[in-house]
Amino acid sequence: MRTAFQFAPVGVIHSCFREKFGIPRQPGLVPGLTARLQIHPPYDREEAFRGLEAFSHVWILFVFHANLQQPWRPMVRPPRLGGNRQVGVFASRSPFRPNPLGLSVVALKGLERQGGRLELILGGGDFLDGTPVLDVKPYLPYADCPTQAHGGWADAMPPATCEVSFTESAREACRDHGRRLGEDLEVLVRTLVSQDPRPAYKSNESNKQRFAMKLFDLDVEWIVENGHARILSLHPLSKDVP
Amino acid sequence: MRTAFQFAPVGVIHSCFREKFGIPRQPGLVPGLTARLQIHPPYDREEAFRGLEAFSHVWILFVFHANLQQPWRPMVRPPRLGGNRQVGVFASRSPFRPNPLGLSVVALKGLERQGGRLELILGGGDFLDGTPVLDVKPYLPYADCPTQAHGGWADAMPPATCEVSFTESAREACRDHGRRLGEDLEVLVRTLVSQDPRPAYKSNESNKQRFAMKLFDLDVEWIVENGHARILSLHPLSKDVP
Repeated sequence: MRTAFQFAPVGVIHSCFREKFGIPRQPGLVPGLTARLQIHPPYDREEAFRGLEAFSHVWILFVFHANLQQPWRPMVRPPRLGGNRQVGVFASRSPFRPNPLGLSVVALKGLERQGGRLELILGGGDFLDGTPVLDVKPYLPYADCPTQAHGGWADAMPPATCEVSFTESAREACRDHGRRLGEDLEVLVRTLVSQDPRPAYKSNESNKQRFAMKLFDLDVEWIVENGHARILSLHPLSKDVP
Repeated sequence: MRTAFQFAPVGVIHSCFREKFGIPRQPGLVPGLTARLQIHPPYDREEAFRGLEAFSHVWILFVFHANLQQPWRPMVRPPRLGGNRQVGVFASRSPFRPNPLGLSVVALKGLERQGGRLELILGGGDFLDGTPVLDVKPYLPYADCPTQAHGGWADAMPPATCEVSFTESAREACRDHGRRLGEDLEVLVRTLVSQDPRPAYKSNESNKQRFAMKLFDLDVEWIVENGHARILSLHPLSKDVP
């Protein structure tokens, strides 16, 4: 009963997030995000997904693979509580948990065969590129959405806290790279940065600190002053990030 | 990226269901059910759950441990579709999946220390006794309950299909054993049997077939005729079921 169980991924996520910094803290906060779940053989058969197109949303059970070397901690400091209040790890959705399992509901946008690969197209995800996926389940509104549920200190969507503006050259870079990538980068960067991805303990600082996040094959740089973020530049990564 | 991941249980479920037959097909269908999640060391520390009491519901990620020897199948026949239509395994919540991981949202009724053991009290579960649990996460209404989600052929709660009556001796047995167990067995048996736990392919049969399920330390026997179930008896199991 106490033995360990072994699970092999059924697929891997390809997303625009090449590092943890900047990823929305819950799925659904940035609906414009798209991720692709590439299904591994022998599971990459259309019939294993037959009927899933009738569902608007799916659960993705995944591994926080960037945290595998971290020990579990009994208590964590959720960003939602300003990063200075501790709660139990099982009272949080922190990735630093005894079993680094993640759970996200995302919109199901399609099932595509691309160059021999079977891929699920997912909307609104919060996945790091390369995330191993253990299971896909249909979202069942009547079973998964209990009426009268309430969520303590995390009952409502976190507000977008940061105003965002762009320098003229950053706006141009959004247009240029966005055309190449097929994405509205201005909207995406605005939404991501407006949620203030900075560590919570820094959110009261307004000393013109520079921040950068990797998005697709780009470095996005901004500066924060008095709660206002100004996007300075988007430029290609010097080399591909693993 | 394709390597397997190992997870050890953080706890084990104690429930009234000693076998799979009779277990509700989704959590929440029988709110009167209570299960206890006993937390294993080193996770059995109150601080690891601090703050969880603010949430009304929790996700339980568990292993379908009774199905570990079964191979995965690309397609399954969900009971909701009468057991005669096939859908892809990833379009179902069937336990026969590549990774036998289960996901249930249940009401959180309390956290108790019982004889040195730390236990979460869960309401409305669909767990087999002895189920290994890999993770407990707070249910976040704003993130876990997407608006406008729809659920294909499983959009609404399955109706209770079976009328249920009791013989006088079965009703007495409910009272006697219910007193000993501290449960309203009549309500519990009525609700469970009204959901017609028979295999879907049998649900059109009305030839007075006998059925039996194990509940707590009891055998519950009933007969079905013309869609009406009559509870015949509740008696102690001859020996303890593993």
